[in-house]
Amino acid sequence: MDNESAIDRVLIYDSTLREGTQCPGISLSVPDKLRIAAELDRLGVAFIEGGMPDTNPKEDEFYRRVAEYPFQNARFVPFGATARVGVKPENDPLLSALAETPFEYVCIYGKCDIFLVENVLRTDRDTNLALIADSVTFLKRAGKKVIFDGEGFFSGIDRDREYAFSCLQAAVQNGAEAAVLCDTTGIADPETCAELTKLVRTELARLAPDALLGIHAHNDCGMADANTITAARNGATLVGTTLFGIGERCGGADFFVTVPNLQLRYGIECIGGERLKELTSASFRLAELLNIKAPAYTPFVGRNAFSHKAGTHIDAVLKAPGSFEPFDPALVGGTRRFLASEITGRSGMRDIVEKICGPDTSPELCEEILEALKQREFEGYQYESAGASLELLIRRLSGQYRPTFTLNSYKVITLDEMAGNPYSASAIVDLTVDGRSEITAGNGIGPVDALDCAFRRAMGHFYPCTLNISLVDYKVRVIDSGEGTASRVRVFIEFTNGARRFGTVGLSGDIIQASWDALVDAYDYWIMYNAEHDRGTAQ
Amino acid sequence: MDNESAIDRVLIYDSTLREGTQCPGISLSVPDKLRIAAELDRLGVAFIEGGMPDTNPKEDEFYRRVAEYPFQNARFVPFGATARVGVKPENDPLLSALAETPFEYVCIYGKCDIFLVENVLRTDRDTNLALIADSVTFLKRAGKKVIFDGEGFFSGIDRDREYAFSCLQAAVQNGAEAAVLCDTTGIADPETCAELTKLVRTELARLAPDALLGIHAHNDCGMADANTITAARNGATLVGTTLFGIGERCGGADFFVTVPNLQLRYGIECIGGERLKELTSASFRLAELLNIKAPAYTPFVGRNAFSHKAGTHIDAVLKAPGSFEPFDPALVGGTRRFLASEITGRSGMRDIVEKICGPDTSPELCEEILEALKQREFEGYQYESAGASLELLIRRLSGQYRPTFTLNSYKVITLDEMAGNPYSASAIVDLTVDGRSEITAGNGIGPVDALDCAFRRAMGHFYPCTLNISLVDYKVRVIDSGEGTASRVRVFIEFTNGARRFGTVGLSGDIIQASWDALVDAYDYWIMYNAEHDRGTAQ
Repeated sequence: MDNESAIDRVLIYDSTLREGTQCPGISLSVPDKLRIAAELDRLGVAFIEGGMPDTNPKEDEFYRRVAEYPFQNARFVPFGATARVGVKPENDPLLSALAETPFEYVCIYGKCDIFLVENVLRTDRDTNLALIADSVTFLKRAGKKVIFDGEGFFSGIDRDREYAFSCLQAAVQNGAEAAVLCDTTGIADPETCAELTKLVRTELARLAPDALLGIHAHNDCGMADANTITAARNGATLVGTTLFGIGERCGGADFFVTVPNLQLRYGIECIGGERLKELTSASFRLAELLNIKAPAYTPFVGRNAFSHKAGTHIDAVLKAPGSFEPFDPALVGGTRRFLASEITGRSGMRDIVEKICGPDTSPELCEEILEALKQREFEGYQYESAGASLELLIRRLSGQYRPTFTLNSYKVITLDEMAGNPYSASAIVDLTVDGRSEITAGNGIGPVDALDCAFRRAMGHFYPCTLNISLVDYKVRVIDSGEGTASRVRVFIEFTNGARRFGTVGLSGDIIQASWDALVDAYDYWIMYNAEHDRGTAQ
Repeated sequence: MDNESAIDRVLIYDSTLREGTQCPGISLSVPDKLRIAAELDRLGVAFIEGGMPDTNPKEDEFYRRVAEYPFQNARFVPFGATARVGVKPENDPLLSALAETPFEYVCIYGKCDIFLVENVLRTDRDTNLALIADSVTFLKRAGKKVIFDGEGFFSGIDRDREYAFSCLQAAVQNGAEAAVLCDTTGIADPETCAELTKLVRTELARLAPDALLGIHAHNDCGMADANTITAARNGATLVGTTLFGIGERCGGADFFVTVPNLQLRYGIECIGGERLKELTSASFRLAELLNIKAPAYTPFVGRNAFSHKAGTHIDAVLKAPGSFEPFDPALVGGTRRFLASEITGRSGMRDIVEKICGPDTSPELCEEILEALKQREFEGYQYESAGASLELLIRRLSGQYRPTFTLNSYKVITLDEMAGNPYSASAIVDLTVDGRSEITAGNGIGPVDALDCAFRRAMGHFYPCTLNISLVDYKVRVIDSGEGTASRVRVFIEFTNGARRFGTVGLSGDIIQASWDALVDAYDYWIMYNAEHDRGTAQ
């Protein structure tokens, strides 16, 4: 690390809306793209890269709408490539489309690896250099600021070092505002990344002192975050990320990993300390918009990042948080969690039980709960994401549980959608509350919806608070898949009243029964929670 | 990188069965632990760490059974800790349990960070040094080889460099066979990792030339893989991993990332080149045993590792695989995939369509299929994991699809399990095949099972091949969760006949309807596949 020239601020260049959409499984609607751009802007990202203009109707619509968005921090950057071989820039449809966009900056990739030039472009080294120079010149004449993405720079260095450099030169000498070192196949390691960033930085200082130096990493060898952070520490001022690192193949540098690393560990400002505190909640919203499950083990913002499971760890964190946490979770808006499982030790279990049953809980009861938990996890339940079901289990074992109803029976009838009815399922629920029998029916789109509808109708009479919650997540996991369609499934359900979220779990060979059990836990929990926390206001 | 002392071979120390079980969401049965140990042994891992002996019934049972397992390559290593403060090693239950295990090696952790000594152990620096020395001595006298895991070594270096070193010294000077640099809170970076590994290596060469130097990384800052690989390149000969990097909080170094990196990029042998080719298939089996979904974006072995989605990438890979692949997928037993999606370009789509419809497919048809695919992805379908549904879609559009049946109606009745019947659902399917009407009924554990049973009964009369497949995976994803229990869901189903797996997708507001659509695609596909591939044998 070259301390004499320490970096203290970089610009984040996020390409979730371009690179990210190339990730298997990612497909974004126009409204979702706009919402993601707005979130990135609020988070203090400097540049937001979009897909190629004029390539499909969705992208066209997005371009029209993003052009009107009042960004506060970010600049939107259309993405494209150098002109095709044998086509003049002014006749190249993509370059012309870029030139016609209403945005100040554009980004084009061009090849820096002689292997790519010869085998993909199928042309010679000089033609490629001319393509780069002419394409940049064309865009500059159209009034654009140009970010040049040096495709295959790191593999190019291995193959023909001088040529790789000459490609970057061709871009900046013709006026590109930024040269990006692109590790297209993800083969760089932190050591080469540090060395090359320093070298190019020196070179740029000579050729184009105002040009930005960028890094765009790929994760094929698991090094994207380490490489990106190393490059930033060694002179890359335009730091490429995507949300959750999504991108082609194994993806690239993760915004949620890169930014807190640079700010918290190396004092390199990216988005500012105050915005850092928004990171965890933003990560939940953005995962939702991307329609992915945020990886639980993502550093800093993942659900597991400050979760402790082993008994010895929980015990140590209760004594001194720094023992098993690299940072205060509050710095990124996170919260510490102790997880209940078969390897939860006595002190972790006591901490969990005391929060529910009070500080005078007997050691014997804690032990009994721990054993019951181990047994149920052995059967296939999992309570780590089903805090509401865990609380009910603890209350049942501690004698603090009062049943809210008795189920007499339920029935669900599902028909195929051909009948033309908007509802495809009907449910009948027969239950008893405080000695009063209640039989209700409900229609629904599918059996779980129908059951929920009938159940809510019955319970709402007695517990109006149950009318205020709605389902936000529903997950099914087959846990012994050898049994075919009769496999046991574990259903997780998450409900919210808008402000508070809570999860429950059900387990059965029958997906409806497992869903029902999870639904019942959710209602039970919510009735109990309201009775305890919102006396008088719950109705 | 210190080239003069280049490493050419390391030993893999896998702690999936200890560290891995501390990962939120992981809970392993005894048979699964044994199967995982057997897989690790087959893969050429040198050491397999287990949980703490004598702590819960499951672990006891596992210890009894693993002791009898005929390992070919690996040594099983029980895990524990230095004696408790104020307790003599011979009176410490955990150390005694370790001493009594029938295994040659044991691993104990001891604190190397003065902060942990003072705040977690709540003792002074000399007492901790004595605990380390006495605990190692006790185990040596019991005939064990001792691996000393230096807890908090990297944070300890920052706090009191000399003390951190003295803790490692206390272990190796008393006969520990290995000193492991443990980055307990995941705060190391590749640069410090290289520096400290080299330093400790020099120190060990002086104090205990035969001792192994280990690395155990954590991923709190996203550096576990980079740190582990850097340490191995700089002198760590005992390389700590877990499968998929599972572990406390954000986990640690991933076996599937570390091993191919070391072997393929740096020529450092871990498990041998031939075993490397088993890595991808082993990763599928091990994910199954761990009951996790293997992350698709895991470098080298993930489903996305050699998958290409953007049209330009597919086009380039068709010309020269090396353009967007760092390694030949065959080196790790992987396969290249081209994904069909709205950003699939014409050349990628042509490649997919030609495999199904033959090389003389018209460009207009390819274009029409691409547009249809974009439209359906827009609606919420996803075809990347549903190759069988994609093939049916392409055949429908190309006129090569022949319906196998006409559905007249289905009905499903689901009852709660209270009735004491093993089946909780009944289905009636009414369909017509080749002008012949067939009404069948089936019972099942849950509605999908019942439908599958009735459907199979009907179809089996006409297409006996449908009797030979069974469901291996069933996934449900809510795609517009704002709608509560009436949200639309996307169902993925995977079937197999034992040798071949194929996936289908269904989309509906009704989980049963979505499941039905996916089931129908699976049967349709299988009937078609058998008609084309196994003429004469499929009946």
